Amino acid sequence: MPLLVVGTVAIDNVETPTESRKNLLGGSATHFSLAARYFTPVRLISVVGEDFPQEHLDFFKKREIDASGLVVVKGGKTMFWAGRYHKNMNDRDSLDTQLNVFGEFNPQLPEPHQAAKFVFCANGMPSIQLNVLSQAPGRRLAVADTMDLWINHHRQDLDTLLEKIDGLVINDIEARLLTGTENLVAAGRAVQKMGPKFVVIKKGEHGAMFFGEHETYVLPAYPTDKLVDPTGAGDTFAGGFMGYIAEKDAFDAETLKTAMAYGIVAASFNVEGFGIEGIAKVTRADIDKRMAAYRQMLSF
Amino acid sequence: MPLLVVGTVAIDNVETPTESRKNLLGGSATHFSLAARYFTPVRLISVVGEDFPQEHLDFFKKREIDASGLVVVKGGKTMFWAGRYHKNMNDRDSLDTQLNVFGEFNPQLPEPHQAAKFVFCANGMPSIQLNVLSQAPGRRLAVADTMDLWINHHRQDLDTLLEKIDGLVINDIEARLLTGTENLVAAGRAVQKMGPKFVVIKKGEHGAMFFGEHETYVLPAYPTDKLVDPTGAGDTFAGGFMGYIAEKDAFDAETLKTAMAYGIVAASFNVEGFGIEGIAKVTRADIDKRMAAYRQMLSF
Repeated sequence: MPLLVVGTVAIDNVETPTESRKNLLGGSATHFSLAARYFTPVRLISVVGEDFPQEHLDFFKKREIDASGLVVVKGGKTMFWAGRYHKNMNDRDSLDTQLNVFGEFNPQLPEPHQAAKFVFCANGMPSIQLNVLSQAPGRRLAVADTMDLWINHHRQDLDTLLEKIDGLVINDIEARLLTGTENLVAAGRAVQKMGPKFVVIKKGEHGAMFFGEHETYVLPAYPTDKLVDPTGAGDTFAGGFMGYIAEKDAFDAETLKTAMAYGIVAASFNVEGFGIEGIAKVTRADIDKRMAAYRQMLSF
Repeated sequence: MPLLVVGTVAIDNVETPTESRKNLLGGSATHFSLAARYFTPVRLISVVGEDFPQEHLDFFKKREIDASGLVVVKGGKTMFWAGRYHKNMNDRDSLDTQLNVFGEFNPQLPEPHQAAKFVFCANGMPSIQLNVLSQAPGRRLAVADTMDLWINHHRQDLDTLLEKIDGLVINDIEARLLTGTENLVAAGRAVQKMGPKFVVIKKGEHGAMFFGEHETYVLPAYPTDKLVDPTGAGDTFAGGFMGYIAEKDAFDAETLKTAMAYGIVAASFNVEGFGIEGIAKVTRADIDKRMAAYRQMLSF
């Protein structure tokens, strides 16, 4: 089944302890789409400025990501983010965040997109996420991500969103901030009470936790010693997770757990390259091979 | 097969954000023994002072832990540790550490103990750990734990120890300190080069990683929302891990992985009570039941 995603498409400057790169194609919807496309057709809803390089538009096209919902604003500037990772490669400082055209984005779903069954609202302003959901009334599963900025300053919209979505995918810091609860198991259950039927808490290098109607579990990250750049790993996780769900056209407990594992495997490729390089260059066969290794790792 | 353990037996004062307890029975060898006894007969080597309460000696006896190697020093004072956990229950401050009689400990293995096949040197001074190993020449598997104090100030003895042991069990902070390497996968491999055939890196609430001759893997912690006191969770992990190995009388790759899982399950009980309460009160059936749930959690 096709998968609709709304989120940011951005230009990133990234510094790690050993390397720094400028003008990388980035953004939550970008990483998400690049992972999800291995599983299902992806329809991308976002906005960029006139400065957005044609090569990036070609890049989406070449990878069969439907970017007909990617608006190019004349005279506008593409969202920009710059970040620097600490020595531990897990913590980072955001050096600069310019929403630019994304700050004024008023998404209009092309007609074929309005019948979407599977919708993912990648990290972005809750009002934009809500706007997209209102244009996809036929959805069977809507899942969203969010971040500290919206938790702290757009809480009312976010609370409305939480009541409308089926699942929330956030990281550990966001889960603690959203609930005021330190223990992640307690935090996950507290988020469920805010609306979503299931909650995924991403723990970076430590994997991800799942809270469903009848079960709570945690799966570890796939261990890699080729950690190059963690940027977008969470979005890539979400892309693998939602991509598999859309591919199976199902979201029963068993499908969701396998989807969690695919998300983790997709994220492990993402961190092995700068920006999108890691996830962009693999094949579905590479993903399935690592998935088999991951399954094996967890068997005893 | 009987399992020999040398380590500390101590009195602990523990403060968590919600509760504080004084004069708890603690120490690395105590937590270790209480987990390992569910799998195999345990022979404890340690030292306490004359102040050590008789009820604790009775406690070991009642649980069939062979404490014939537990020396009581006349006029001596038992090791004492006081710690306070941060709000996140993962970080802690050591408020007081008094080695007392443990600082002068010169272990003499009772004759039946000298034929030990499985030996665990729980956290303690490397010279004491080496001393015990030299008295157990028939050992088939020797595994040790260590900590920042010995890494920073007893490095030469520790390096000698690393060359003599088959496995090292340490936590993530210690692995980074020992190797000067941030990435845990790289750190684990770097420790292997110092001598041990296998290395286990404990990550607290995030589970544990294993580095063997041919494989690297990570297993998550068993998620619990009943987190009461993490003190001794790492030693309890080691007790479950070594206990299962001694029970199976084997340490092939498959046995080691199942042992990792038993260690994780044992640790999950430990954190659900203050001090030793959590691990002391369960049964082997409780452990096996949770082990089945853990296996199920990792199946997809």
